[in-house]
Amino acid sequence: MAVQTVASSTSGSTVDLGPAAALSCRECGHRVPLGPVFACDKCFGPLEIAYDFSAYDTEELRKKIEAGPANIWRYAPLLPVPADVADKPNLNPGWTKLVKADNLAGELGVTGGLYVKDDSGNPTHSFKDRVVAQALEAARAFGFTTLSCSSTGNLAGAVGAAAARAGFRSCVFIPHDLEQGKVVMAAIYGGDLVGIEGNYDDVNRFCSELIGDPAGEGWGFVNVNLRPYYAEGSKTLAYEVCEQLGWRLPDQIVVPIASGSQLTKVDKGLQELIKLGLVEDKPYKIFGAQAEGCSPVSTAFKAGHDVVRPQKPNTIAKSLAIGNPADGPYVLDIARRTGGAVEDVTDEQVVDAIKLLARTEGIFAETAGGVTVGVTRKLIESGALDPTKTTVVLNTGDGLKTLDAVAGTGLTATIRPTLDSFREAGLV
Amino acid sequence: MAVQTVASSTSGSTVDLGPAAALSCRECGHRVPLGPVFACDKCFGPLEIAYDFSAYDTEELRKKIEAGPANIWRYAPLLPVPADVADKPNLNPGWTKLVKADNLAGELGVTGGLYVKDDSGNPTHSFKDRVVAQALEAARAFGFTTLSCSSTGNLAGAVGAAAARAGFRSCVFIPHDLEQGKVVMAAIYGGDLVGIEGNYDDVNRFCSELIGDPAGEGWGFVNVNLRPYYAEGSKTLAYEVCEQLGWRLPDQIVVPIASGSQLTKVDKGLQELIKLGLVEDKPYKIFGAQAEGCSPVSTAFKAGHDVVRPQKPNTIAKSLAIGNPADGPYVLDIARRTGGAVEDVTDEQVVDAIKLLARTEGIFAETAGGVTVGVTRKLIESGALDPTKTTVVLNTGDGLKTLDAVAGTGLTATIRPTLDSFREAGLV
Repeated sequence: MAVQTVASSTSGSTVDLGPAAALSCRECGHRVPLGPVFACDKCFGPLEIAYDFSAYDTEELRKKIEAGPANIWRYAPLLPVPADVADKPNLNPGWTKLVKADNLAGELGVTGGLYVKDDSGNPTHSFKDRVVAQALEAARAFGFTTLSCSSTGNLAGAVGAAAARAGFRSCVFIPHDLEQGKVVMAAIYGGDLVGIEGNYDDVNRFCSELIGDPAGEGWGFVNVNLRPYYAEGSKTLAYEVCEQLGWRLPDQIVVPIASGSQLTKVDKGLQELIKLGLVEDKPYKIFGAQAEGCSPVSTAFKAGHDVVRPQKPNTIAKSLAIGNPADGPYVLDIARRTGGAVEDVTDEQVVDAIKLLARTEGIFAETAGGVTVGVTRKLIESGALDPTKTTVVLNTGDGLKTLDAVAGTGLTATIRPTLDSFREAGLV
Repeated sequence: MAVQTVASSTSGSTVDLGPAAALSCRECGHRVPLGPVFACDKCFGPLEIAYDFSAYDTEELRKKIEAGPANIWRYAPLLPVPADVADKPNLNPGWTKLVKADNLAGELGVTGGLYVKDDSGNPTHSFKDRVVAQALEAARAFGFTTLSCSSTGNLAGAVGAAAARAGFRSCVFIPHDLEQGKVVMAAIYGGDLVGIEGNYDDVNRFCSELIGDPAGEGWGFVNVNLRPYYAEGSKTLAYEVCEQLGWRLPDQIVVPIASGSQLTKVDKGLQELIKLGLVEDKPYKIFGAQAEGCSPVSTAFKAGHDVVRPQKPNTIAKSLAIGNPADGPYVLDIARRTGGAVEDVTDEQVVDAIKLLARTEGIFAETAGGVTVGVTRKLIESGALDPTKTTVVLNTGDGLKTLDAVAGTGLTATIRPTLDSFREAGLV
């Protein structure tokens, strides 16, 4: 796909990351050149990518996107990646199905159109492939040779797979006592997988130390020193939803909250599409979904607080179990500004929602998908979500990765191999 | 997608399954009207779909396909489905990635272009979604209301999911002592899942009895009375490979063998594309891949036999473990006619090949994918497969479904959360 590359105008950097012009502090607006940094040197606020989209013509851009590949690189002109990104070896995630969920809509009483954005269709079956793909391009641009992260699950596999395909070494750090299945899913790609004697906090602390040490030289930690690039991958969820709706904004979108980064980037993506003229400028509401056992943001939302008080996670939705979500305050702001809400559901409701989605639409979601579907149901019942409006629910992962959560699901009947025995079972 | 529907000309039937004109016996050529039957009433040979493609103009057809949806229904004009199939609720499988596997090619010494057709990207993560989607349309056409099958794994989930989305009841039969993980994957979609006290043969025998019994009235068994329709789904693998190569035939294609049906339909699909003028008519070779522990077809191939002697399966590649493959003789014929071969690999080689594919391309394959990659390597070493030619290897399923096979894969190191401990581990 030939795209217009806008040179970095303010940074003076020679790094080619397409339309990415600089890093900009989300708190104080201070700009710094593109580089493997994540905190503002003035105020320690989080850095994010600032773009120069000024050269784009709306209809030319739309045509370029529509003629692009069936993956996230159709949006290369809007991402911090070089224009020829699609020619480089990577897993090409994205362009997952937006499923019109009429059966689920019937059960939930939604009449305005209900859609499930099913990110289990990504190469390693979670939305993490989207964000890792951006971090990989940044790692290439900065000359890193090892791709790394701290992880308790989906991210480890996504990094291992992407690094294998791209010819990077990978070294991923996890708590040493993870379930064997998760270890296999991460180790199969042949990179180094290091178990740390400690919990996830210890793993994170160790990674931060390693970044400042000579031993970590040449290492890109996708969710630490490459975080500003990594996080942008979630914008592609917003782009795809709108394009798949026929270049329309949804009225309502339900997004899971772990660190909160995904929700803030979905909002950023929708805002960009409006500014670029690719969709009509009209109101939309963003809803955040948490599990009750790790609900620091929904607790703050309901209490009317601006500050998020950390919690100790205890939920089956482990991919959302971040007790001190970095982007929590931004999530609160977006939910309130758009007229959305943040809600949570119990583990039992998560399991019910996983089964509901599977039974109605044939989609087997990870626990995080159970959280968004469960919260959608709860928000409809409470009246916070309008069932007459177009609503999109994100499923960010695959049920095969969290089989334990629904381990109670089993046989309807056990019979002898005879017709009499079958008739006795009462199934006909 | 608007397509030309060719009315059934020979059957007198009122069933609308697009270009499907009749069922035709693969042995004696006897034609019967489209219906839920699978064996010839003259000679008991297997029935397959006979099409009327006579009205198609090559370039119009190509344009229709290219403008079609990003799933198997882009090929609706070549499948036994109604023209409006894409508007009906189903899982929309297919159009999975054809990955240019340059890293794997480097390891195997392939210089002519090596591609992995990665069917783990399907909705329930195996190629079974392709075949079930065809059976579902046949079930709709014949007025069935329950979708059923006998299964030991992938098929149960594919049927359960497709039935849920399409609003069919499902009732799937499995051996009662299947692993809990496989039971969960099949049961999650909410259909009836019946455990039969006995082995897979007992399950199959029971299903055949049920078809002839009033208790089975209105039931479509995807792999029994709907088998002629079901089997056609594998043609879409051939279509997609050729279109994704830029409407070119591959020189060599490596296909796994369970019943052998998939390999025969890949050949049928390639032949159809040649006859329709969508690809150039040139020679191609089809290779069959089996696990040594269930290698009735490769044993017959190597011995020069036309008859396949049944074996008792004993391999980790359970999705290929059919000891008495119905299409074995047809597979032998195709491998010999095209200049291909049938080869097998040990379970150890299967595991090595799974790891090789994951390490080089970031693709985590099911054991069946380990079989095809392992056989590809063996065929290159023996000289049967030409490394200077364009070669496509099928991966028909997802590694998450056969984690047990690679359960030995684990941590590179376990360390304390300190830089000293990390340095001692010798990873930097």
